[in-house]
Amino acid sequence: MAIINKEKNETLLQRAMRALHERTFFAAYPENPTPDVYGETAEQEGRMAFEAALQKPFTELWQPDPADWVGQEESPYEQQSLGITYPYFEVQTLIERGEKAFHTWRKVAPAERAALLVEALEYIKKRFFQIAYATMHTTGQSFLMSFQASGPHAADRALEAIAAGLEEQTRFPSQTEWEKPMGKYSIKLQKSWVAVPKGISVVIGCSTFPTWNTVPGMFASLVTGNPVIIKPHPKAVLPIAIIVAEVQKVLQEQNLDPTICQLAVDARECLITKELAEHPKVKLIDYTGSTAFGNYLEKLPGKTVFTEKAGVNSVILDSVTDLDKVVQNLAFSISLYSGQMCTAPQNFFIPEAGIVANGEVISYEVITQKLSEAIANLVNNPKAGPQILGAIQNTATGQRVKDAAEGHGKVLLSTCDIVNPNFTNARMCSPVLYEVTAAHKEIYNQELFGPIALIIKTKNTAESIALARELAETQGAISCAAYSTDAEIKEQIKDEMSLAGTPVSFNLTGNIYVNQNAGFSDFHVTGGNPAGNASFTNPEFVIKRFTWVGFREPAPMS
Amino acid sequence: MAIINKEKNETLLQRAMRALHERTFFAAYPENPTPDVYGETAEQEGRMAFEAALQKPFTELWQPDPADWVGQEESPYEQQSLGITYPYFEVQTLIERGEKAFHTWRKVAPAERAALLVEALEYIKKRFFQIAYATMHTTGQSFLMSFQASGPHAADRALEAIAAGLEEQTRFPSQTEWEKPMGKYSIKLQKSWVAVPKGISVVIGCSTFPTWNTVPGMFASLVTGNPVIIKPHPKAVLPIAIIVAEVQKVLQEQNLDPTICQLAVDARECLITKELAEHPKVKLIDYTGSTAFGNYLEKLPGKTVFTEKAGVNSVILDSVTDLDKVVQNLAFSISLYSGQMCTAPQNFFIPEAGIVANGEVISYEVITQKLSEAIANLVNNPKAGPQILGAIQNTATGQRVKDAAEGHGKVLLSTCDIVNPNFTNARMCSPVLYEVTAAHKEIYNQELFGPIALIIKTKNTAESIALARELAETQGAISCAAYSTDAEIKEQIKDEMSLAGTPVSFNLTGNIYVNQNAGFSDFHVTGGNPAGNASFTNPEFVIKRFTWVGFREPAPMS
Repeated sequence: MAIINKEKNETLLQRAMRALHERTFFAAYPENPTPDVYGETAEQEGRMAFEAALQKPFTELWQPDPADWVGQEESPYEQQSLGITYPYFEVQTLIERGEKAFHTWRKVAPAERAALLVEALEYIKKRFFQIAYATMHTTGQSFLMSFQASGPHAADRALEAIAAGLEEQTRFPSQTEWEKPMGKYSIKLQKSWVAVPKGISVVIGCSTFPTWNTVPGMFASLVTGNPVIIKPHPKAVLPIAIIVAEVQKVLQEQNLDPTICQLAVDARECLITKELAEHPKVKLIDYTGSTAFGNYLEKLPGKTVFTEKAGVNSVILDSVTDLDKVVQNLAFSISLYSGQMCTAPQNFFIPEAGIVANGEVISYEVITQKLSEAIANLVNNPKAGPQILGAIQNTATGQRVKDAAEGHGKVLLSTCDIVNPNFTNARMCSPVLYEVTAAHKEIYNQELFGPIALIIKTKNTAESIALARELAETQGAISCAAYSTDAEIKEQIKDEMSLAGTPVSFNLTGNIYVNQNAGFSDFHVTGGNPAGNASFTNPEFVIKRFTWVGFREPAPMS
Repeated sequence: MAIINKEKNETLLQRAMRALHERTFFAAYPENPTPDVYGETAEQEGRMAFEAALQKPFTELWQPDPADWVGQEESPYEQQSLGITYPYFEVQTLIERGEKAFHTWRKVAPAERAALLVEALEYIKKRFFQIAYATMHTTGQSFLMSFQASGPHAADRALEAIAAGLEEQTRFPSQTEWEKPMGKYSIKLQKSWVAVPKGISVVIGCSTFPTWNTVPGMFASLVTGNPVIIKPHPKAVLPIAIIVAEVQKVLQEQNLDPTICQLAVDARECLITKELAEHPKVKLIDYTGSTAFGNYLEKLPGKTVFTEKAGVNSVILDSVTDLDKVVQNLAFSISLYSGQMCTAPQNFFIPEAGIVANGEVISYEVITQKLSEAIANLVNNPKAGPQILGAIQNTATGQRVKDAAEGHGKVLLSTCDIVNPNFTNARMCSPVLYEVTAAHKEIYNQELFGPIALIIKTKNTAESIALARELAETQGAISCAAYSTDAEIKEQIKDEMSLAGTPVSFNLTGNIYVNQNAGFSDFHVTGGNPAGNASFTNPEFVIKRFTWVGFREPAPMS
């Protein structure tokens, strides 16, 4: 197989494998959409390519003979249909093609698969701007977040999965001579081992992060030799369709079956996810989405399932150095992409007696007041607000924000009309903030997806920690922010939250936020609580995709 | 913590971790029970210690206040009760003690846990002979197999699990400084990670290999910081009770809670396995035994379960160099411990046109005749037969051998009365051999535990391979033996059986058998078919026992 940039790709893979173990900062794909990195014309070309694809069938895929053409995406910024249609295939067609492709792909050596997939990322890199516009107009993310999350950050997560997959498949020798001394003679066996891929892999995407949450499972399955069927959320297809098309292009150039990686779009009237997931030939499932559907998938017999479901993320406020910096940081975390991130904070635990800030006790009321003001200032700043908030992906989320006024305790901050001057028709709402007491667990022990934050008044930090841990253990949690200047309390938070399988960010201020999650350093989702059993990218995320099988035979007499 | 042989243990751990990756021959515990290795008096002392423990309560455990004393072991050689009683505890007591011990044990560093556990193996080594007699008189294994399987081979498998567990917990840095360049400044975070153990681990043993099948899960859970409750088969307690007692002794010497490792014996009238397994505080379960119970355990929600269940092991005969050597090897494999090994071959696929042996076609009839004769010669050899066969552990197995005469096709070899001159009362039977056609799948598509072998007449090798693969995929398989001198056919067998997650031993003759399985080299059970989802010891076997949780905080300004 002639990979164009074989040597370059192998160097990058080596670097990426080292990064997995160093866990210091590493990024192969620059996150800033600047002309000096991506070229003077990249942004404009990407936008034009996005616009040119609207109101047309998407014809880039190497998947012949669709049964239909379907599409239902609409822009949260325009609240209008994108008018793009995608080829639709019966599940049986997808499975038959996947099964055939399996026997080609599994015979390609892991190192060659890895080099080919890195090559695909290089192709994808050339389309980062188009993917950014596609993401923006399906998810409602701002342009900058769309670029970063769906482009370089996703590509880094994909590279991380490829590197982890290659490392795990080459950790043990492919063959060895085993010689057992038996006294006067010895027994010699030639042994060999194969990492056998499990079979067809289905990756089920979500509507808010259509590439970032899809590529880890997709590339982890591909590098371990499994053919992949990508089932995107019907409202967010285009970003991942471009990625699938680029992977198919590389496969086709290498004279491999492009249906090693298939796109499977469903339409509202014909949802294929269950039929796909339940098919006996499907052995691996990656899923991002609701807890109910995730739990259904996890219980399917005979499947290896990786999930990222709902979680309830907590913030524990105990003591701070500079309260203004803290509330500014938290206001940003609440507002970013209108809380539509799995890492967004929701429940803020604050002791009723207030907290110590730089030696001085600040009352509970002052803290909540400052947090409300910080949010209001941020979202009402016309230069920052609309960009930080983005748009609301799903009308149900907007409705949830409105409905929250009923039964979520005392209103500290209501949503207000925010207008994005560039997209006056954008679906938007600003964060809402409610106050409840610790006793009203029925209000805060659930995910309220979107820009909804709850202040929970506790007796003290010990109660805050206990509740944060309990919620993580029972409802799941993907992130936790904690503010304390007390070393003992920090240790206690680490200990308690570690038992709830929840990572903790301490004392974040400035331009780093609890929502952010770095490839090659932060494991994403721990697998240690009900928020999901997957973790990008720890070894478990890749080794469960293949089986070690050994062969042995007496060595020829020498 | 002052481990007596800290340096020695660390050196051994380093060597063991290297062995995991070399997969050449490595054994830390010599398998020959010879005086020059274990001392002149070791055998006699071990036997006396075993005899002294009979008809008494087992009082070595550091588990106070039992609710009762129970015991139901009997020797398959004497067909008499051993008369040993063990402390019995309510499930609630076991869980409360385990939960308390959890919070001590999880705070011990992985390297210290590993050194302590290796120390325990050194203590256990001093009792190998006693364990051997205990194994012999509970399982029916011969003395030599009892010594090897329950002593050095089990200790090597335990060491392998400790080494794999330590490696996985130290593969990523425990802390690092992450610095992200942001143009004019950089963001610096101090990051740290903890491998958080999952919680109480229950290890459910079997009656035939009470230590070999128990110690991998037991030591894998312990090294990853989980407290362990060992639930042995009520008919085979003593061998593992001695091991638990030695682990408790080391824990106690290190001022650690001995109930980090508890023994939980049930009695016939009060089986505690389900209650234990279903308890919400139990997070990890290791199990060796029947498929029905294993399937029940695998479906329990909220548990990480490792199983070794039933399998149907195939032998594919295609072409050989020396048929006599082949049938001798296979006769031994069928007879060894009367087929009561999970790796014992059961289904022998032979083409109806016979096979080529050293250039000459040997008819199907001659092959089956030679195999029958080889078995008969082996078991009727008074010097070898009784030692190879051992005794039948369970009366149900003996009955199954007798009942097999009905409905298992044409009899090629019936069981005969074999007498062990040293144990005239031993429960014994010799292997039976039946002939069925490939069409009678209902006969051979199930495990017939014990010395029952079926010859299946196939159209050709292609059918043999297809059936062996299908059986492995649908019924599970732990081993496969294949004989072929044709490189293409060998490749085909490798390919097909790899897809069925079944390791293959090719062309074994002489003193190496398909039943045998070497620590640090042969993965035991692949996880790739219904015979079980565990694999000693690939990384998955240990990493599923803990969760990576990360912490981050802005680095202090420099």
